Amino acid sequence: MDYENLLMLVKSRRSCRRFRPDPVPGAAVEKILEVARYAPSAGNSQPWEFVVVEDPETKRKISRSIVSLYKEARRRDPTFNFKVAVQPHLFTAPVLIVVCGDRRLQEAYPVLMRRNVLLRQSLAVCAYAMQLAATSLGLATAWGTIQGGPPETEVRRLLGIPDVYTVDHIMPLGYPDTERERRDRSLRPAKERAPYRRELEEIIHYECYDTDKFRTDDKLEEFIWSKTVTRIPSP
Amino acid sequence: MDYENLLMLVKSRRSCRRFRPDPVPGAAVEKILEVARYAPSAGNSQPWEFVVVEDPETKRKISRSIVSLYKEARRRDPTFNFKVAVQPHLFTAPVLIVVCGDRRLQEAYPVLMRRNVLLRQSLAVCAYAMQLAATSLGLATAWGTIQGGPPETEVRRLLGIPDVYTVDHIMPLGYPDTERERRDRSLRPAKERAPYRRELEEIIHYECYDTDKFRTDDKLEEFIWSKTVTRIPSP
Repeated sequence: MDYENLLMLVKSRRSCRRFRPDPVPGAAVEKILEVARYAPSAGNSQPWEFVVVEDPETKRKISRSIVSLYKEARRRDPTFNFKVAVQPHLFTAPVLIVVCGDRRLQEAYPVLMRRNVLLRQSLAVCAYAMQLAATSLGLATAWGTIQGGPPETEVRRLLGIPDVYTVDHIMPLGYPDTERERRDRSLRPAKERAPYRRELEEIIHYECYDTDKFRTDDKLEEFIWSKTVTRIPSP
Repeated sequence: MDYENLLMLVKSRRSCRRFRPDPVPGAAVEKILEVARYAPSAGNSQPWEFVVVEDPETKRKISRSIVSLYKEARRRDPTFNFKVAVQPHLFTAPVLIVVCGDRRLQEAYPVLMRRNVLLRQSLAVCAYAMQLAATSLGLATAWGTIQGGPPETEVRRLLGIPDVYTVDHIMPLGYPDTERERRDRSLRPAKERAPYRRELEEIIHYECYDTDKFRTDDKLEEFIWSKTVTRIPSP
Protein backbone atom coordinates (compact mmCIF):
# COMPACT_ATOMS: atom_id res chain seq x y z
CA MET A 1 0.00 0.00 0.00
CA ASP A 2 1.41 3.32 -0.90
CA TYR A 3 1.86 6.28 1.37
CA GLU A 4 -0.75 8.55 -0.22
CA ASN A 5 -3.48 5.95 0.20
CA LEU A 6 -2.51 5.40 3.83
CA LEU A 7 -2.63 9.14 4.50
CA MET A 8 -6.12 9.30 2.97
CA LEU A 9 -7.21 6.38 5.12
CA VAL A 10 -5.96 7.80 8.44
CA LYS A 11 -7.58 11.13 7.55
CA SER A 12 -10.95 9.57 6.77
CA ARG A 13 -11.02 7.42 9.94
CA ARG A 14 -13.31 9.11 12.45
CA SER A 15 -15.58 8.36 15.39
CA CYS A 16 -19.11 7.76 14.20
CA ARG A 17 -21.93 8.47 16.65
CA ARG A 18 -25.02 7.66 14.59
CA PHE A 19 -25.38 4.42 12.65
CA ARG A 20 -27.80 3.18 10.02
CA PRO A 21 -29.71 0.06 11.10
CA ASP A 22 -28.38 -1.97 8.12
CA PRO A 23 -26.73 -5.16 9.33
CA VAL A 24 -22.97 -5.61 9.00
CA PRO A 25 -22.01 -8.77 7.09
CA GLY A 26 -20.21 -11.34 9.22
CA ALA A 27 -17.44 -11.42 6.63
CA ALA A 28 -16.76 -7.72 7.26
CA VAL A 29 -16.41 -8.30 11.00
CA GLU A 30 -13.93 -11.08 10.29
CA LYS A 31 -11.98 -8.88 7.88
CA ILE A 32 -11.69 -6.19 10.56
CA LEU A 33 -10.41 -8.66 13.14
CA GLU A 34 -8.04 -10.14 10.58
CA VAL A 35 -6.32 -6.74 10.39
CA ALA A 36 -6.53 -6.35 14.17
CA ARG A 37 -4.65 -9.57 14.84
CA TYR A 38 -1.64 -8.25 12.90
CA ALA A 39 -1.28 -5.30 15.26
CA PRO A 40 1.97 -5.17 17.19
CA SER A 41 1.80 -5.95 20.92
CA ALA A 42 4.27 -5.90 23.79
CA GLY A 43 6.55 -8.92 23.35
CA ASN A 44 4.21 -10.11 20.57
CA SER A 45 1.92 -11.30 23.37
CA GLN A 46 -1.30 -10.75 21.36
CA PRO A 47 -3.36 -10.36 24.52
CA TRP A 48 -6.64 -9.74 22.67
CA GLU A 49 -9.94 -11.58 22.60
CA PHE A 50 -12.96 -10.16 20.76
CA VAL A 51 -16.60 -10.66 21.65
CA VAL A 52 -18.90 -9.78 18.75
CA VAL A 53 -22.32 -8.78 20.10
CA GLU A 54 -25.43 -8.39 17.94
CA ASP A 55 -28.16 -9.38 20.38
CA PRO A 56 -30.24 -6.22 21.06
CA GLU A 57 -30.88 -7.07 24.70
CA THR A 58 -27.17 -7.62 25.42
CA LYS A 59 -26.28 -4.40 23.61
CA ARG A 60 -28.87 -2.54 25.66
CA LYS A 61 -27.47 -3.87 28.93
CA ILE A 62 -23.90 -3.02 27.98
CA SER A 63 -24.97 0.48 26.98
CA ARG A 64 -26.84 1.04 30.22
CA SER A 65 -23.78 0.08 32.20
CA ILE A 66 -21.59 2.56 30.34
CA VAL A 67 -24.21 5.30 30.55
CA SER A 68 -24.25 4.92 34.33
CA LEU A 69 -20.47 5.41 34.49
CA TYR A 70 -20.63 8.54 32.39
CA LYS A 71 -23.58 9.90 34.37
CA GLU A 72 -21.46 9.61 37.48
CA ALA A 73 -18.55 11.31 35.67
CA ARG A 74 -20.84 14.19 34.68
CA ARG A 75 -22.19 14.45 38.22
CA ARG A 76 -18.64 14.96 39.45
CA ASP A 77 -17.65 17.20 36.58
CA PRO A 78 -20.43 19.21 34.91
CA THR A 79 -18.17 20.38 32.06
CA PHE A 80 -17.77 16.82 30.81
CA ASN A 81 -19.34 16.50 27.37
CA PHE A 82 -21.81 13.80 28.29
CA LYS A 83 -23.79 14.01 25.05
CA VAL A 84 -20.80 13.01 23.01
CA ALA A 85 -19.55 10.36 25.38
CA VAL A 86 -22.82 8.59 26.09
CA GLN A 87 -23.81 7.82 22.63
CA PRO A 88 -27.06 6.34 21.50
CA HIS A 89 -24.80 4.56 19.04
CA LEU A 90 -24.03 1.96 21.68
CA PHE A 91 -27.71 1.03 21.56
CA THR A 92 -28.20 1.48 17.83
CA ALA A 93 -25.02 0.19 16.23
CA PRO A 94 -25.78 -3.16 14.61
CA VAL A 95 -22.62 -4.67 16.11
CA LEU A 96 -20.57 -4.06 19.25
CA ILE A 97 -17.09 -5.53 19.35
CA VAL A 98 -15.83 -5.91 22.91
CA VAL A 99 -12.03 -5.95 23.16
CA CYS A 100 -10.62 -7.87 26.14
CA GLY A 101 -7.06 -8.48 27.28
CA ASP A 102 -5.51 -11.46 29.04
CA ARG A 103 -3.86 -10.09 32.16
CA ARG A 104 -1.75 -13.22 32.58
CA LEU A 105 0.30 -12.27 29.53
CA GLN A 106 1.93 -9.49 31.52
CA GLU A 107 4.34 -12.19 32.59
CA ALA A 108 5.79 -11.94 29.07
CA TYR A 109 6.76 -8.31 29.60
CA PRO A 110 10.08 -7.07 30.97
CA VAL A 111 10.29 -6.43 34.69
CA LEU A 112 10.84 -2.75 35.57
CA MET A 113 8.20 -1.82 33.00
CA ARG A 114 4.65 -0.89 33.92
CA ARG A 115 3.28 -4.13 32.66
CA ASN A 116 -0.34 -3.14 33.08
CA VAL A 117 0.25 -0.13 30.83
CA LEU A 118 1.95 -2.30 28.18
CA LEU A 119 -1.10 -4.57 28.15
CA ARG A 120 -3.53 -1.70 27.75
CA GLN A 121 -1.41 -0.03 25.08
CA SER A 122 -1.33 -3.25 23.06
CA LEU A 123 -5.13 -3.35 23.14
CA ALA A 124 -5.45 0.31 22.13
CA VAL A 125 -3.14 -0.22 19.15
CA CYS A 126 -5.25 -3.20 18.13
CA ALA A 127 -8.42 -1.09 18.40
CA TYR A 128 -6.86 1.52 16.09
CA ALA A 129 -6.12 -1.22 13.56
CA MET A 130 -9.81 -2.20 13.77
CA GLN A 131 -10.85 1.37 13.06
CA LEU A 132 -8.60 1.60 10.01
CA ALA A 133 -9.90 -1.71 8.66
CA ALA A 134 -13.53 -0.67 9.20
CA THR A 135 -12.87 2.62 7.39
CA SER A 136 -11.30 0.81 4.43
CA LEU A 137 -14.54 -1.22 4.13
CA GLY A 138 -16.84 1.83 4.18
CA LEU A 139 -17.89 1.07 7.74
CA ALA A 140 -17.39 3.25 10.77
CA THR A 141 -16.65 2.75 14.44
CA ALA A 142 -16.46 4.72 17.64
CA TRP A 143 -14.21 4.06 20.56
CA GLY A 144 -15.77 3.39 23.94
CA THR A 145 -13.18 2.96 26.66
CA ILE A 146 -13.97 1.00 29.82
CA GLN A 147 -10.79 -0.25 31.47
CA GLY A 148 -11.83 -0.88 35.03
CA GLY A 149 -14.60 0.31 37.31
CA PRO A 150 -18.16 -1.01 37.62
CA PRO A 151 -18.84 -1.35 33.85
CA GLU A 152 -15.86 -3.68 33.44
CA THR A 153 -17.24 -5.99 36.11
CA GLU A 154 -20.73 -5.79 34.66
CA VAL A 155 -19.75 -6.40 31.03
CA ARG A 156 -17.57 -9.29 32.15
CA ARG A 157 -20.54 -10.83 33.94
CA LEU A 158 -22.97 -10.15 31.07
CA LEU A 159 -20.73 -11.79 28.48
CA GLY A 160 -19.36 -14.56 30.69
CA ILE A 161 -15.81 -13.28 30.35
CA PRO A 162 -13.41 -14.99 32.79
CA ASP A 163 -11.80 -12.88 35.52
CA VAL A 164 -8.32 -13.07 34.00
CA TYR A 165 -9.42 -10.71 31.23
CA THR A 166 -9.63 -6.94 31.34
CA VAL A 167 -12.48 -5.36 29.38
CA ASP A 168 -10.89 -2.45 27.61
CA HIS A 169 -12.88 -1.17 24.65
CA ILE A 170 -16.39 -1.37 23.28
CA MET A 171 -16.30 -0.61 19.58
CA PRO A 172 -19.70 0.05 17.97
CA LEU A 173 -19.58 -0.86 14.30
CA GLY A 174 -21.90 -0.10 11.41
CA TYR A 175 -22.62 2.07 8.41
CA PRO A 176 -22.53 5.75 9.36
CA ASP A 177 -25.77 7.71 9.28
CA THR A 178 -24.21 11.01 8.29
CA GLU A 179 -27.57 12.72 7.85
CA ARG A 180 -28.58 12.04 11.46
CA GLU A 181 -25.14 13.03 12.70
CA ARG A 182 -25.50 16.33 10.83
CA ARG A 183 -28.95 17.06 12.25
CA ASP A 184 -28.10 16.27 15.89
CA ARG A 185 -27.17 19.60 17.44
CA SER A 186 -25.61 18.01 20.52
CA LEU A 187 -22.96 16.41 18.32
CA ARG A 188 -22.10 19.59 16.48
CA PRO A 189 -19.24 20.95 18.67
CA ALA A 190 -17.54 17.57 18.76
CA LYS A 191 -17.97 17.04 15.03
CA GLU A 192 -16.44 20.42 14.31
CA ARG A 193 -13.49 19.84 16.57
CA ALA A 194 -12.70 16.21 15.80
CA PRO A 195 -10.98 16.80 12.43
CA TYR A 196 -8.74 19.48 13.95
CA ARG A 197 -5.08 18.60 14.16
CA ARG A 198 -2.15 20.60 15.51
CA GLU A 199 0.15 21.59 12.64
CA LEU A 200 3.26 19.56 11.94
CA GLU A 201 5.57 22.49 12.70
CA GLU A 202 4.03 22.84 16.17
CA ILE A 203 4.88 19.28 17.18
CA ILE A 204 8.19 18.52 15.46
CA HIS A 205 11.51 19.30 17.14
CA TYR A 206 14.97 18.76 15.69
CA GLU A 207 17.84 17.34 17.78
CA CYS A 208 16.37 18.70 21.01
CA TYR A 209 13.11 20.12 22.33
CA ASP A 210 12.50 23.55 20.80
CA THR A 211 11.44 25.73 23.71
CA ASP A 212 9.87 28.27 21.33
CA LYS A 213 7.17 25.66 20.78
CA PHE A 214 6.36 25.24 24.46
CA ARG A 215 2.72 25.91 25.28
CA THR A 216 2.19 27.87 28.48
CA ASP A 217 -0.44 26.66 30.95
CA ASP A 218 -2.76 29.39 29.67
CA LYS A 219 -2.35 28.35 26.05
CA LEU A 220 -2.91 24.75 27.02
CA GLU A 221 -6.06 25.60 28.94
CA GLU A 222 -7.34 27.48 25.90
CA PHE A 223 -6.56 24.47 23.69
CA ILE A 224 -8.44 22.10 26.00
CA TRP A 225 -11.58 24.23 25.97
CA SER A 226 -11.58 25.09 22.28
CA LYS A 227 -10.16 22.00 20.58
CA THR A 228 -10.73 18.81 22.52
CA VAL A 229 -14.08 17.04 22.34
CA THR A 230 -14.73 15.99 25.94
CA ARG A 231 -14.28 19.41 27.57
CA ILE A 232 -17.17 21.35 26.13
CA PRO A 233 -19.15 23.44 28.63
CA SER A 234 -22.47 21.71 29.22
CA PRO A 235 -25.47 23.71 28.02
CA MET B 1 -7.33 2.87 0.41
CA ASP B 2 -8.82 -0.47 -0.05
CA TYR B 3 -8.92 -3.27 2.46
CA GLU B 4 -6.55 -5.65 0.69
CA ASN B 5 -3.80 -3.05 0.54
CA LEU B 6 -4.26 -2.24 4.22
CA LEU B 7 -4.04 -5.91 5.14
CA MET B 8 -0.79 -6.20 3.17
CA LEU B 9 0.56 -3.13 4.93
CA VAL B 10 -0.22 -4.31 8.47
CA LYS B 11 1.28 -7.69 7.63
CA SER B 12 4.50 -6.22 6.30
CA ARG B 13 5.01 -3.86 9.25
CA ARG B 14 7.62 -5.35 11.55
CA SER B 15 10.25 -4.41 14.10
CA CYS B 16 13.59 -3.91 12.40
CA ARG B 17 16.72 -4.46 14.48
CA ARG B 18 19.50 -3.80 11.96
CA PHE B 19 19.57 -0.73 9.77
CA ARG B 20 21.60 0.30 6.75
CA PRO B 21 23.60 3.47 7.33
CA ASP B 22 21.90 5.29 4.41
CA PRO B 23 20.43 8.57 5.60
CA VAL B 24 16.67 9.03 5.76
CA PRO B 25 15.43 12.04 3.77
CA GLY B 26 13.93 14.76 5.94
CA ALA B 27 10.83 14.68 3.75
CA ALA B 28 10.26 11.02 4.72
CA VAL B 29 10.42 11.88 8.43
CA GLU B 30 7.85 14.62 7.86
CA LYS B 31 5.59 12.26 5.92
CA ILE B 32 5.70 9.78 8.78
CA LEU B 33 4.76 12.42 11.34
CA GLU B 34 2.05 13.72 9.01
CA VAL B 35 0.34 10.34 9.32
CA ALA B 36 1.06 10.22 13.06
CA ARG B 37 -0.72 13.49 13.73
CA TYR B 38 -3.97 12.06 12.33
CA ALA B 39 -3.98 9.28 14.92
CA PRO B 40 -6.95 9.31 17.28
CA SER B 41 -6.28 10.36 20.87
CA ALA B 42 -8.32 10.52 24.06
CA GLY B 43 -10.67 13.51 23.70
CA ASN B 44 -8.72 14.49 20.54
CA SER B 45 -6.10 15.88 22.92
CA GLN B 46 -3.18 15.15 20.54
CA PRO B 47 -0.70 14.99 23.41
CA TRP B 48 2.30 14.21 21.20
CA GLU B 49 5.56 16.03 20.53
CA PHE B 50 8.31 14.47 18.41
CA VAL B 51 12.03 15.01 18.77
CA VAL B 52 13.92 13.90 15.66
CA VAL B 53 17.50 13.00 16.60
CA GLU B 54 20.28 12.43 14.06
CA ASP B 55 23.31 13.59 16.03
CA PRO B 56 25.47 10.47 16.65
CA GLU B 57 26.60 11.60 20.09
CA THR B 58 23.02 12.20 21.29
CA LYS B 59 21.90 8.86 19.85
CA ARG B 60 24.77 7.15 21.65
CA LYS B 61 23.81 8.72 24.97
CA ILE B 62 20.13 7.81 24.59
CA SER B 63 21.08 4.24 23.71
CA ARG B 64 23.38 3.92 26.70
CA SER B 65 20.62 5.03 29.00
CA ILE B 66 18.20 2.44 27.65
CA VAL B 67 20.84 -0.29 27.70
CA SER B 68 21.38 0.37 31.40
CA LEU B 69 17.66 -0.08 32.10
CA TYR B 70 17.53 -3.37 30.23
CA LYS B 71 20.75 -4.58 31.90
CA GLU B 72 19.05 -4.05 35.23
CA ALA B 73 15.92 -5.86 33.95
CA ARG B 74 18.07 -8.82 32.89
CA ARG B 75 19.89 -8.83 36.21
CA ARG B 76 16.55 -9.24 37.94
CA ASP B 77 15.19 -11.68 35.40
CA PRO B 78 17.73 -13.83 33.53
CA THR B 79 15.11 -15.18 31.10
CA PHE B 80 14.53 -11.72 29.66
CA ASN B 81 15.61 -11.65 26.01
CA PHE B 82 18.18 -8.92 26.41
CA LYS B 83 19.74 -9.36 22.95
CA VAL B 84 16.50 -8.48 21.25
CA ALA B 85 15.54 -5.66 23.57
CA VAL B 86 18.88 -3.87 23.70
CA GLN B 87 19.38 -3.37 20.11
CA PRO B 88 22.44 -1.99 18.45
CA HIS B 89 19.87 -0.38 16.19
CA LEU B 90 19.44 2.40 18.70
CA PHE B 91 23.08 3.27 18.02
CA THR B 92 23.06 2.56 14.31
CA ALA B 93 19.68 3.74 13.05
CA PRO B 94 20.20 6.96 11.11
CA VAL B 95 17.27 8.60 12.91
CA LEU B 96 15.68 8.23 16.33
CA ILE B 97 12.24 9.73 16.80
CA VAL B 98 11.47 10.38 20.45
CA VAL B 99 7.73 10.44 21.21
CA CYS B 100 6.73 12.59 24.20
CA GLY B 101 3.35 13.31 25.77
CA ASP B 102 2.04 16.41 27.50
CA ARG B 103 0.84 15.26 30.90
CA ARG B 104 -1.21 18.43 31.39
CA LEU B 105 -3.67 17.28 28.72
CA GLN B 106 -5.00 14.65 31.10
CA GLU B 107 -7.25 17.45 32.29
CA ALA B 108 -9.17 16.96 29.03
CA TYR B 109 -10.04 13.36 29.95
CA PRO B 110 -13.13 12.25 31.84
CA VAL B 111 -12.85 11.89 35.59
CA LEU B 112 -13.25 8.29 36.81
CA MET B 113 -10.98 7.16 33.99
CA ARG B 114 -7.35 6.26 34.47
CA ARG B 115 -6.15 9.40 32.82
CA ASN B 116 -2.50 8.43 32.80
CA VAL B 117 -3.38 5.27 30.88
CA LEU B 118 -5.43 7.24 28.34
CA LEU B 119 -2.43 9.49 27.74
CA ARG B 120 -0.05 6.58 27.21
CA GLN B 121 -2.51 4.74 24.98
CA SER B 122 -2.87 7.81 22.77
CA LEU B 123 0.90 7.89 22.33
CA ALA B 124 1.10 4.17 21.55
CA VAL B 125 -1.59 4.48 18.89
CA CYS B 126 0.35 7.37 17.37
CA ALA B 127 3.54 5.27 17.36
CA TYR B 128 1.70 2.51 15.48
CA ALA B 129 0.60 5.07 12.87
CA MET B 130 4.27 6.04 12.51
CA GLN B 131 5.22 2.41 11.93
CA LEU B 132 2.58 1.97 9.23
CA ALA B 133 3.67 5.17 7.48
CA ALA B 134 7.35 4.15 7.60
CA THR B 135 6.47 0.75 6.15
CA SER B 136 4.50 2.35 3.30
CA LEU B 137 7.65 4.33 2.42
CA GLY B 138 9.95 1.28 2.38
CA LEU B 139 11.48 2.30 5.69
CA ALA B 140 11.41 0.35 8.93
CA THR B 141 11.17 1.12 12.61
CA ALA B 142 11.41 -0.60 15.95
CA TRP B 143 9.58 0.27 19.10
CA GLY B 144 11.58 1.19 22.17
CA THR B 145 9.39 1.82 25.16
CA ILE B 146 10.58 4.00 28.04
CA GLN B 147 7.65 5.37 30.02
CA GLY B 148 9.17 6.27 33.34
CA GLY B 149 12.22 5.25 35.31
CA PRO B 150 15.76 6.56 35.04
CA PRO B 151 15.92 6.62 31.20
CA GLU B 152 12.92 8.93 31.02
CA THR B 153 14.63 11.42 33.30
CA GLU B 154 17.90 11.09 31.43
CA VAL B 155 16.44 11.44 27.92
CA ARG B 156 14.41 14.41 29.11
CA ARG B 157 17.59 16.07 30.36
CA LEU B 158 19.61 15.16 27.24
CA LEU B 159 17.04 16.62 24.86
CA GLY B 160 15.96 19.55 27.04
CA ILE B 161 12.41 18.27 27.26
CA PRO B 162 10.35 20.16 29.88
CA ASP B 163 9.13 18.27 32.96
CA VAL B 164 5.48 18.36 31.91
CA TYR B 165 6.21 15.80 29.20
CA THR B 166 6.46 12.05 29.54
CA VAL B 167 9.02 10.31 27.34
CA ASP B 168 7.22 7.29 26.01
CA HIS B 169 8.80 5.80 22.92
CA ILE B 170 12.08 5.87 21.08
CA MET B 171 11.49 4.84 17.48
CA PRO B 172 14.64 4.03 15.49
CA LEU B 173 14.03 4.69 11.80
CA GLY B 174 15.94 3.72 8.68
CA TYR B 175 16.27 1.33 5.78
CA PRO B 176 16.30 -2.27 7.00
CA ASP B 177 19.52 -4.25 6.62
CA THR B 178 17.84 -7.61 6.10
CA GLU B 179 21.11 -9.35 5.34
CA ARG B 180 22.61 -8.41 8.71
CA GLU B 181 19.38 -9.30 10.47
CA ARG B 182 19.49 -12.71 8.83
CA ARG B 183 23.11 -13.34 9.80
CA ASP B 184 22.76 -12.30 13.45
CA ARG B 185 22.07 -15.49 15.36
CA SER B 186 20.93 -13.69 18.51
CA LEU B 187 18.00 -12.23 16.58
CA ARG B 188 16.91 -15.54 15.10
CA PRO B 189 14.39 -16.73 17.73
CA ALA B 190 12.70 -13.34 17.83
CA LYS B 191 12.62 -13.09 14.05
CA GLU B 192 11.02 -16.50 13.78
CA ARG B 193 8.40 -15.75 16.40
CA ALA B 194 7.50 -12.18 15.45
CA PRO B 195 5.35 -13.00 12.40
CA TYR B 196 3.35 -15.56 14.40
CA ARG B 197 -0.27 -14.66 15.05
CA ARG B 198 -2.97 -16.55 16.90
CA GLU B 199 -5.63 -17.74 14.46
CA LEU B 200 -8.83 -15.74 14.04
CA GLU B 201 -11.00 -18.59 15.33
CA GLU B 202 -8.99 -18.70 18.56
CA ILE B 203 -9.71 -15.07 19.43
CA ILE B 204 -13.22 -14.41 18.11
CA HIS B 205 -16.28 -15.06 20.29
CA TYR B 206 -19.91 -14.61 19.29
CA GLU B 207 -22.49 -13.04 21.64
CA CYS B 208 -20.57 -14.15 24.73
CA TYR B 209 -17.18 -15.50 25.70
CA ASP B 210 -16.76 -19.03 24.35
CA THR B 211 -15.30 -21.00 27.24
CA ASP B 212 -14.05 -23.71 24.87
CA LYS B 213 -11.47 -21.16 23.76
CA PHE B 214 -10.16 -20.49 27.26
CA ARG B 215 -6.45 -21.11 27.63
CA THR B 216 -5.46 -22.82 30.86
CA ASP B 217 -2.54 -21.46 32.86
CA ASP B 218 -0.39 -24.27 31.48
CA LYS B 219 -1.31 -23.49 27.87
CA LEU B 220 -0.64 -19.85 28.50
CA GLU B 221 2.74 -20.56 30.04
CA GLU B 222 3.61 -22.65 27.00
CA PHE B 223 2.53 -19.82 24.70
CA ILE B 224 4.68 -17.28 26.55
CA TRP B 225 7.80 -19.43 26.25
CA SER B 226 7.32 -20.56 22.67
CA LYS B 227 5.66 -17.62 20.93
CA THR B 228 6.48 -14.30 22.55
CA VAL B 229 9.76 -12.54 21.80
CA THR B 230 10.88 -11.23 25.19
CA ARG B 231 10.66 -14.50 27.10
CA ILE B 232 13.35 -16.54 25.44
CA PRO B 233 15.68 -18.45 27.78
CA SER B 234 19.04 -16.70 27.70
CA PRO B 235 21.85 -18.77 26.19
